[in-house]
Amino acid sequence: MIRTGKEYLESIRDGRALYIGKERVKDQTTHPAFASGARTYAALFDMKADPALRDSMTFEEGGERYSIYYLQPRSQEDLRRRNRAHRKIADFCFGLMGRTPDAFAGNLTGLTMKPEVFDSEPGGNRNNLLAIYRYIRREDLFATYAIVPPQGARNKEYYLATGLPQPALRVTAEDDRGVTLNGMKMLASGAAYAHEVLVGNVMPLAPDQLKESITCIIPLNLPGLMLWSREPFNRAGLRAFDRPLTNRFDESDCMLVFKDAHVPWDKVIVHDNPGLSRNIYIQTAAHVISNHQSNVRFGSKLKFLLGVASLITRYTGARDIPSVRETLARLAAMEAGYNAMIDGQIEACEPFGDGFVVFNRRYMYAAIHWAMENHSELIDIVRELMGGGQFQFPASIDILEDTELRELFETFWTAGEFAATDRMKLFKLAWDLIGSDHASRASSYEKFFVGPAFAVRNYNFINAPWDELHAAVESFMASYGTGDGGAT
Amino acid sequence: MIRTGKEYLESIRDGRALYIGKERVKDQTTHPAFASGARTYAALFDMKADPALRDSMTFEEGGERYSIYYLQPRSQEDLRRRNRAHRKIADFCFGLMGRTPDAFAGNLTGLTMKPEVFDSEPGGNRNNLLAIYRYIRREDLFATYAIVPPQGARNKEYYLATGLPQPALRVTAEDDRGVTLNGMKMLASGAAYAHEVLVGNVMPLAPDQLKESITCIIPLNLPGLMLWSREPFNRAGLRAFDRPLTNRFDESDCMLVFKDAHVPWDKVIVHDNPGLSRNIYIQTAAHVISNHQSNVRFGSKLKFLLGVASLITRYTGARDIPSVRETLARLAAMEAGYNAMIDGQIEACEPFGDGFVVFNRRYMYAAIHWAMENHSELIDIVRELMGGGQFQFPASIDILEDTELRELFETFWTAGEFAATDRMKLFKLAWDLIGSDHASRASSYEKFFVGPAFAVRNYNFINAPWDELHAAVESFMASYGTGDGGAT
Amino acid sequence: MIRTGKEYLESIRDGRALYIGKERVKDQTTHPAFASGARTYAALFDMKADPALRDSMTFEEGGERYSIYYLQPRSQEDLRRRNRAHRKIADFCFGLMGRTPDAFAGNLTGLTMKPEVFDSEPGGNRNNLLAIYRYIRREDLFATYAIVPPQGARNKEYYLATGLPQPALRVTAEDDRGVTLNGMKMLASGAAYAHEVLVGNVMPLAPDQLKESITCIIPLNLPGLMLWSREPFNRAGLRAFDRPLTNRFDESDCMLVFKDAHVPWDKVIVHDNPGLSRNIYIQTAAHVISNHQSNVRFGSKLKFLLGVASLITRYTGARDIPSVRETLARLAAMEAGYNAMIDGQIEACEPFGDGFVVFNRRYMYAAIHWAMENHSELIDIVRELMGGGQFQFPASIDILEDTELRELFETFWTAGEFAATDRMKLFKLAWDLIGSDHASRASSYEKFFVGPAFAVRNYNFINAPWDELHAAVESFMASYGTGDGGAT
Amino acid sequence: MIRTGKEYLESIRDGRALYIGKERVKDQTTHPAFASGARTYAALFDMKADPALRDSMTFEEGGERYSIYYLQPRSQEDLRRRNRAHRKIADFCFGLMGRTPDAFAGNLTGLTMKPEVFDSEPGGNRNNLLAIYRYIRREDLFATYAIVPPQGARNKEYYLATGLPQPALRVTAEDDRGVTLNGMKMLASGAAYAHEVLVGNVMPLAPDQLKESITCIIPLNLPGLMLWSREPFNRAGLRAFDRPLTNRFDESDCMLVFKDAHVPWDKVIVHDNPGLSRNIYIQTAAHVISNHQSNVRFGSKLKFLLGVASLITRYTGARDIPSVRETLARLAAMEAGYNAMIDGQIEACEPFGDGFVVFNRRYMYAAIHWAMENHSELIDIVRELMGGGQFQFPASIDILEDTELRELFETFWTAGEFAATDRMKLFKLAWDLIGSDHASRASSYEKFFVGPAFAVRNYNFINAPWDELHAAVESFMASYGTGDGGAT
Repeated sequence: MIRTGKEYLESIRDGRALYIGKERVKDQTTHPAFASGARTYAALFDMKADPALRDSMTFEEGGERYSIYYLQPRSQEDLRRRNRAHRKIADFCFGLMGRTPDAFAGNLTGLTMKPEVFDSEPGGNRNNLLAIYRYIRREDLFATYAIVPPQGARNKEYYLATGLPQPALRVTAEDDRGVTLNGMKMLASGAAYAHEVLVGNVMPLAPDQLKESITCIIPLNLPGLMLWSREPFNRAGLRAFDRPLTNRFDESDCMLVFKDAHVPWDKVIVHDNPGLSRNIYIQTAAHVISNHQSNVRFGSKLKFLLGVASLITRYTGARDIPSVRETLARLAAMEAGYNAMIDGQIEACEPFGDGFVVFNRRYMYAAIHWAMENHSELIDIVRELMGGGQFQFPASIDILEDTELRELFETFWTAGEFAATDRMKLFKLAWDLIGSDHASRASSYEKFFVGPAFAVRNYNFINAPWDELHAAVESFMASYGTGDGGAT
Repeated sequence: MIRTGKEYLESIRDGRALYIGKERVKDQTTHPAFASGARTYAALFDMKADPALRDSMTFEEGGERYSIYYLQPRSQEDLRRRNRAHRKIADFCFGLMGRTPDAFAGNLTGLTMKPEVFDSEPGGNRNNLLAIYRYIRREDLFATYAIVPPQGARNKEYYLATGLPQPALRVTAEDDRGVTLNGMKMLASGAAYAHEVLVGNVMPLAPDQLKESITCIIPLNLPGLMLWSREPFNRAGLRAFDRPLTNRFDESDCMLVFKDAHVPWDKVIVHDNPGLSRNIYIQTAAHVISNHQSNVRFGSKLKFLLGVASLITRYTGARDIPSVRETLARLAAMEAGYNAMIDGQIEACEPFGDGFVVFNRRYMYAAIHWAMENHSELIDIVRELMGGGQFQFPASIDILEDTELRELFETFWTAGEFAATDRMKLFKLAWDLIGSDHASRASSYEKFFVGPAFAVRNYNFINAPWDELHAAVESFMASYGTGDGGAT
Repeated sequence: MIRTGKEYLESIRDGRALYIGKERVKDQTTHPAFASGARTYAALFDMKADPALRDSMTFEEGGERYSIYYLQPRSQEDLRRRNRAHRKIADFCFGLMGRTPDAFAGNLTGLTMKPEVFDSEPGGNRNNLLAIYRYIRREDLFATYAIVPPQGARNKEYYLATGLPQPALRVTAEDDRGVTLNGMKMLASGAAYAHEVLVGNVMPLAPDQLKESITCIIPLNLPGLMLWSREPFNRAGLRAFDRPLTNRFDESDCMLVFKDAHVPWDKVIVHDNPGLSRNIYIQTAAHVISNHQSNVRFGSKLKFLLGVASLITRYTGARDIPSVRETLARLAAMEAGYNAMIDGQIEACEPFGDGFVVFNRRYMYAAIHWAMENHSELIDIVRELMGGGQFQFPASIDILEDTELRELFETFWTAGEFAATDRMKLFKLAWDLIGSDHASRASSYEKFFVGPAFAVRNYNFINAPWDELHAAVESFMASYGTGDGGAT
Repeated sequence: MIRTGKEYLESIRDGRALYIGKERVKDQTTHPAFASGARTYAALFDMKADPALRDSMTFEEGGERYSIYYLQPRSQEDLRRRNRAHRKIADFCFGLMGRTPDAFAGNLTGLTMKPEVFDSEPGGNRNNLLAIYRYIRREDLFATYAIVPPQGARNKEYYLATGLPQPALRVTAEDDRGVTLNGMKMLASGAAYAHEVLVGNVMPLAPDQLKESITCIIPLNLPGLMLWSREPFNRAGLRAFDRPLTNRFDESDCMLVFKDAHVPWDKVIVHDNPGLSRNIYIQTAAHVISNHQSNVRFGSKLKFLLGVASLITRYTGARDIPSVRETLARLAAMEAGYNAMIDGQIEACEPFGDGFVVFNRRYMYAAIHWAMENHSELIDIVRELMGGGQFQFPASIDILEDTELRELFETFWTAGEFAATDRMKLFKLAWDLIGSDHASRASSYEKFFVGPAFAVRNYNFINAPWDELHAAVESFMASYGTGDGGAT
């Protein structure tokens, strides 16, 4: 099925235990903290269901039609189809939401592209995985993931020494029907809006962390599962004019807190196998397929940043100053270079497993690394182009409601061809891109969503062709000796 | 006199026309947007009035006692006294407030250290300046400044062509008693809290901008003067726990909007002289004395940043990882290097004018430049050290009010020796240092408070001893010829 | 024809007026300064003539076989063929030579891909261009270019005021047979080794610089043309062991000095048209085709750098230190990202002119910009990985010729599994990559070979889709108004 | 005594075993590789012996006069005297020589400022140290040091496993008269020119490396000691015009190779004590006093860089382009900031030990760190300002000797007011600052002369006042609770 926005909204009113501090959110589709975000997700569903986009946003298999991001790519053209669909979704939200439905879909689809990994060791369950994949694509569900232990929980020795309960999620009981889970997982972005969540481990576990290795895909209204939201950035009374990006694109982040939550066996894909629990992302196509989407998303953000930066300078009249023009040119070069890295992943695609094909893995990790290293500077460049501009505007556009103030505002704040309200609108937008809590959260997100810097670098390290690189140097060195005259 | 905090608070309830959007603020000492900021300023006054600090925070002249930051330095030791007092104030607010009372005081005091500049050209009024200085220090007033035209107003040709009123502040009428002002000035930081404001021009004016050259020092409750606040970062209901820095240190920024405001002649120090209007800051000691204070303030902030960064890593358990330790070491080196640049200004102090002495000017501009260039990276380093930590905490500490949630919180969020609430407290503090609107405003402030980058660089350029530097190279070049054998 | 190395060497012994200081070089194929470079070029010709590489290094058209880099691409696959051949050549010299024969060949071929540009304005000669193209590919010639006026010559006013002869190359006389040239052009890299050189203008000329707009393609032994070499980095007695890269890859740079040199009309492609003189590179495919080669070359260099960096750390035993591993990972990410940008140019190729196709232009300029901005840091990273290692070795490997010294050397300089001589060999190689004159020349080359930074940025600026980028932001801004509630 | 240059030159012709590859250098004061360097050192001695500089370059104690850099500072003014003398010497060589006589003199003097460190553990010999100090200052000797094991030798396990002789210097025999040494130390800069060398350990040794802990100060002509020079950058025939800095300032670097060298006990200051062997530099004033000199030296280099950079832009006519002016301004800010850090060390000086005073230690390490982190970028900025300028000049100034070439040169290479030869002279000088082997060696030197980056950072880490920094944050956190309303 291809779900509409309306259907989507109805489906997530499912009784999940979502908390803002001590407040239990009854209906996230109407609560001020989440309602406008929910509308954005609904719009994405509607876009996908639009008959005009049928060919680009969906595919047919076995007579049924599915969202394109569940397509298992078998050709370079399939990769292009996925790429274009990701781009369509990312452009819709200017790359400002990390966890659109196509994000985890890439992960899940990638897992199914080498299902034998789940057979390779005890504890993996290939059949469950494939059944879940078919279920999720059939129901056109939006799933997300939480695959990192809570920050404070990594000091295992402490908990063993003190006898305190360990905060990291683990299986605390098992029975015929399934497993009982207790503990926490961080950090389920999009969890206020998604249907399902994969719970697992992207960081290495020690061999004895059997019970923490549990990997399962579960509905977000599972009894015993609570979603503890971080401070939402929307609140009642906040105008779209003042925080247009926060308003539309605050995707939510939740800690998942499990208290005697019971998960049936058929939702479990890894059990009692710490090594496998992590390897499934790397050894299958999950990491490469899903992070290509991250690349595309970031590419959209770069275009938006570039557009905003350029408009700001047009509004301030600085766009023709040579140094400002050079700054915009640098941004443009960075944007083009980044999107080139994405297209390069298609040109240099790689066969994978049984008849499949994936994006170039090294190029994908390189792009991830680039984004992680450069995002903060990009934001800082926009900050610099804005000057102190954003602070010169009144505290609220409500001044328009007072005749005298409005007249002053429209007289003094209008600048040449740019009307006072339009200027304020653009600067408010730009501030929401670089200065608001929402903006700052993005700065942290872009640094950490794939893992800490050393992990991102490690992916780049382990995939580099060291032997080949060394051989080229060594072969050159072998071509001359200690006694060779050089220049004659 | 030395004013107490209580006296200060009373004195700023003066009927000024302070607006938050369309809302007129009746009493900034009790309004949620400004009350806690006012308390901080009051605490600074109390600190200064503390008899135990009498020697360090005040000085005596002609039998009267004044705040130390009005001291005209006549010796290296006087510079040290000023330096120590700035440090005391800056440390109180961790360098997070740009416009403490000692900031503009440096400017004003510096102006009086070469009053003949005001005699050097028509339009300057030395006597008014000196009288204002004596008045302000006698009354122990807190003054601030607004010396930049509104961003949109810089395109003068446009306004001349269209006949629209120019937004940049100007004299629109003159009479025996004084001048009438209309237009805007940006950006009076601290204006919600100060007593007086200097209105002037730090950017060059064209020779024909006579009427914009007006420079005067006026009370903030002047009839016809409105303060349009930017969006305040405090609001009713925001807890100190959640935004401890915003709470204490949001100093306010206001556009000054003049509508037929009348300023008596004795408050005017420059009139109808565009060149002089700007030169007074550079040709007197104003710029060097006041920006030494900026350096000291930033030095305090660096120490605070370093302390927070280090504590964060202690709480996350990462402090002993070699790469994290190196990062802290880099921060420590930056902090020490910056504070060394400040002390160097005292060691290499320079005689100035008639018996006075000032901080080393080149070193001061170098430190300003360093801060401008490095602040964003410093913040980004703290961001990196935090990881995704800040998003793992509940939306509000109000969960403590729910027994069940509290128990979960205290069980799962406690990490080793660090209690859940303490961890959350530190991460909330750190977020307010790097991620909140308050934090982002600081990132812009540190880039622009002295002027845009090209202006800061220009100060460094024009003060460099180019002739001497060239001569050293040329003299070396003169020491060998085209035919000189070198090595033998 | 496909020329062999031997044929090539014979053909460049053509009597050209090549100078090293005051010394006229009689035969650059045997002179210590150039002989080993000539051998490298000969080897490239031999590689291309190797029957085993016939399909990848040559193509057939009209029954004749030509070097592949003269192929006019009509399909994505043609672009891939060019790309692979460039890579083959670049890998041979590790990207350390900027002016291999395929470099200017791209320029020349690109010029022919929109020959109507030469018809579009007076002064262009399409037929000459096409005839020269056919001639050069038929004879399998190696051509280079010199398209920048001498640095000191840019101040035209000075020469007009003083009446001194202007150093910038210009037509000083014309007759039926052609034009007479006087003046200089910088900087013909490869000119000691090439057959022909294009003389022209890549920087904008003023409209009245008619006579400087001359653009022609001429043999390097043209009477009246002198080649003034910069200091060569090879010299008699320098061992390959001590400077292996200098030895093989010093491609030469020459100022072209014209003294009454006569060029026949059929070698002239632009005349008396300053605008056209520059536009031919941008409006045809010359810039995009030739700079794709530059990208590929730099991509090869990156791989070599990465290989050397990694081997150095293996030899020093530091490769497993986490921070060193991260550094290598960063380099690997940079290398992969850069090569991804190249492949992206093929995936996102663009139709061009009449049935042709070119690499993606924005991506190409982005890669140029990336290389220009990052090369110095890359070199610095290798420097850091080397530590002081290179200075611990003896001044010359000739110590092997003294029994006692050799024994000491082999005892004390051997480190674990790495023999003393091998260690010294690798460090000498690495020093030649980062520390020798040859290495430093490369650092300048990578910054300037396409033009100064502002020119490279300008290419990125003018090709960015600003309207589209603005429209996306403006359309978003149009979707909400001043009064829209946001969060509810 | 105060030695003259002539006396100095005679004194270093002492029969030392100095090798360039297999060549034994008979007299370094006349050998092409070292003669011009020796003249520079002699000039330094002459400058110091100049009666006009008697007060600034020497001091009196107990009726005898010594070089000022042996002064034990007892007051802030003493620190200023040392600082000014270092500056004088550094300015003479533009900071391009790391190992002028005042460098190690700081180390040695610093060691004597807490001689009780040598009593604190077995193996230290305070009396020997003090006698050596008195001897060296009395004889006005130039000493240097070598305190790092050879790079390859750090893998101790390997040597133990294989039974091969370990390359790291160690005591291999002891008798009544002293110790016998075998092995290597790196890297004695200045050893071709100095009289004495301290051999020791700045990197931590393992507790069982008793025999490597030997620390002694010995003459460079000690029997059994060989100096293996790295490739010298001067050679016969190289003109001063072409490499003016190499010519004057190549200070030499030598590996010290010991083969059964016997050192009498009275030259030994640490023996059989690995911990003490390293701690003497940190626990005494050696590190802080000697590295203040390094700071001063680097400060001189910065001024020279700035002068060259500025002159280059004047010669190219680019100095008034805004972006170039900004670049120079940035350099000027960096130079001023760095020298401010040095002066700050005096202002914030610290009491040390028994009546002594030292430069501020944290500030000194911060400056070291700054130089290490920024040197390469500084060089790169100069490279950028030069453009391709240096390659446009002829290979040698010998073209002046050919009438025809000279005329062409003077016609075409003269640029406005700048004569051809002067332009070439400046660009050759600048190339020797950024591009020659000498320049590249400096780039490595500035990164490593105090130790690798992690060691420099470690010095900054261990000296930071963490407790105080934490306490400030914690005290602030203690000032508000979980329930505190903030804004009201």
